[in-house]
Amino acid sequence: MTFLEKIKSAQLKNKSKLCIGLDTSLSNIPEHLLSETNPVLTFNKAIIDATKDLACAYKPNVAYYEAYGIKGFEALEGTLAHIPEYIFTIADIKRGDIGATSDQYAIAYQEKFPFDSVTLSPYMGSDSVEPFLKRDDLGVFFLGLTSNQGAKDFQYLDLASGKKLYEEVTDKIREWNKPKNNCGLVVGATKPSELKAIRERAPELPFLIPGIGAQGGSLEEVLEANDSGIALINVSRAICGASRRMDFAEAARMAAMKFVEGMR
Amino acid sequence: MTFLEKIKSAQLKNKSKLCIGLDTSLSNIPEHLLSETNPVLTFNKAIIDATKDLACAYKPNVAYYEAYGIKGFEALEGTLAHIPEYIFTIADIKRGDIGATSDQYAIAYQEKFPFDSVTLSPYMGSDSVEPFLKRDDLGVFFLGLTSNQGAKDFQYLDLASGKKLYEEVTDKIREWNKPKNNCGLVVGATKPSELKAIRERAPELPFLIPGIGAQGGSLEEVLEANDSGIALINVSRAICGASRRMDFAEAARMAAMKFVEGMR
Repeated sequence: MTFLEKIKSAQLKNKSKLCIGLDTSLSNIPEHLLSETNPVLTFNKAIIDATKDLACAYKPNVAYYEAYGIKGFEALEGTLAHIPEYIFTIADIKRGDIGATSDQYAIAYQEKFPFDSVTLSPYMGSDSVEPFLKRDDLGVFFLGLTSNQGAKDFQYLDLASGKKLYEEVTDKIREWNKPKNNCGLVVGATKPSELKAIRERAPELPFLIPGIGAQGGSLEEVLEANDSGIALINVSRAICGASRRMDFAEAARMAAMKFVEGMR
Repeated sequence: MTFLEKIKSAQLKNKSKLCIGLDTSLSNIPEHLLSETNPVLTFNKAIIDATKDLACAYKPNVAYYEAYGIKGFEALEGTLAHIPEYIFTIADIKRGDIGATSDQYAIAYQEKFPFDSVTLSPYMGSDSVEPFLKRDDLGVFFLGLTSNQGAKDFQYLDLASGKKLYEEVTDKIREWNKPKNNCGLVVGATKPSELKAIRERAPELPFLIPGIGAQGGSLEEVLEANDSGIALINVSRAICGASRRMDFAEAARMAAMKFVEGMR
C-alpha cells in the first residue's frame, strides 16, 4: 500500500482520525509499573491493547525514548512490534540534516525501526530530506506551522515575496510531494483559522495535527477548519495520562473513546 | 568550567581547533573490525587513542548510531566514556521540538549521554530550545548557515525586513546567548565570504565549522574568514576514512596531524 492508502485504510478500519501520541517516560506512568523489567514498554503495550480498536495511528515521540537511553530504544522496538499491522505508525523525530546524515536517519526509522512515516524539520532544505522522498509507501510529515509560542520567532516571518515563512514552507512541501505523494504537514491545532488557510493552500496533503487536549485546541473547530482533507489528530497526555492509578489503561480507553465519538 | 572555558581549555591543551566528526557505521569502517563485538565502538576507540593529542573536540553524529539501533547507542555510550576529560564533546543531533519534548532531549544528551554540547535546529523558536539555555556549563550550536545545496530553499530567503533568514537566525541566537553565554553557530566552510560576514555579525559566538576536507572547504580560507573568533573546525571523512586497512588509526593520525599543522 502507498503512504496515503495506509492512512486511509487505518482510518476506515477503526472509523477514526485519532492518533495516540506515546510520549512515555518513567516520570509520567503509574508508579505500580516501575517494578517491571521495562516499565515504558509495559505501559505502551497496555495503552495499545486498550485502544487498538479506537486509534488509527500511534506516534511515539522518540525524544522520550532517547532520554531513557538504551532501555528506551528497547521499549521503542517492543512498542512498534506490538502495534497491529492495520494501524498507521509515525516516528516523531523532527530530524533534519545534510544528505549523508539524512540517509542514516532513513535507515534508522525505515529499516532498523520500521515505521510507516516520520516527522522531519524542513529547515535545511531539499537535499536534507531527499532520502525520505524516495518511496511511495513510507511518508514524511514536515513541520509546517507549530502551535508553540516560539513559532513566532521564525515561522511567521514576513518574506520579501509577501508570503510568511510557513507559507513558503507549505508551497515547497507541495513540490516535494509530487514525485511520490508521500508528504504531509504538521499543523498545530491551537489556531483553527490558520489551519483552515493552510488546508486551502495544500488540499492534497495529509495533516498531522497536534495540540488537542492538554494543549488546548478544540476538536470541533479543528475538524471544521480541516474540512475534507486527510487529518490525523494527535492526542497524547489527555489519553495516556488520564489516570496514573491501576485503572490507567481503562481510563485511557474512556478518554480515547470520547475523542473518537467527537470525530464520528 | 563554563561552555566557553571548556572549549578554550581544550584548544589550548592540544594547540588545536580540530574537531573530529565520528560519523561511524558498519559500512565505512575497515572490514577486519566487523568480527568485533561492537565494531563501531572498537573503531571509535582506536581513532580517539590515535588522535587525542591532536583534536580539541570529538563530535559523534548521532544519526549514525541511531541507524545501528540499540548497539549504536551502546557504541555511543562507550565512545563518550573513552574520550579524555580535557577534550570537548559535541552530540550532533540537530533536534528541535516544543518545550516538553526538548526537555527530554536535554535529559538524553546532557544526562543520559553526558555531552558538553549539542547541535540544535532553531526553526521552532525560543521555547523549543529553552531547556538547553539554562546551564552555562553546557552549550548549544545552532544551525546558522549550512553548506549544503538545500540551504537555498529557506536559509537564504529574503525577509521583508531586508535581512536574509540566516541573518535573522544569527541575530536571534545572539539574544538567546545573553543569559548564559552558552550558544554557538554551525556555519558551513564552503563559502568563506559568508562565513566572514557572519563572523562580523556575531563576533562573540563560537562557530562549529563543518565542510573542510571531503566536502571541499579550504582550511586556509576558513581560518582567515573566521578571524580571531572561537572556532571548532570539523573534519570527519578525511580523517576517519583515511584508510580502510589495518593501518586505519595511524592513517587517521597522519591526516589529523596535517590539519592541525595547517591550523598552527
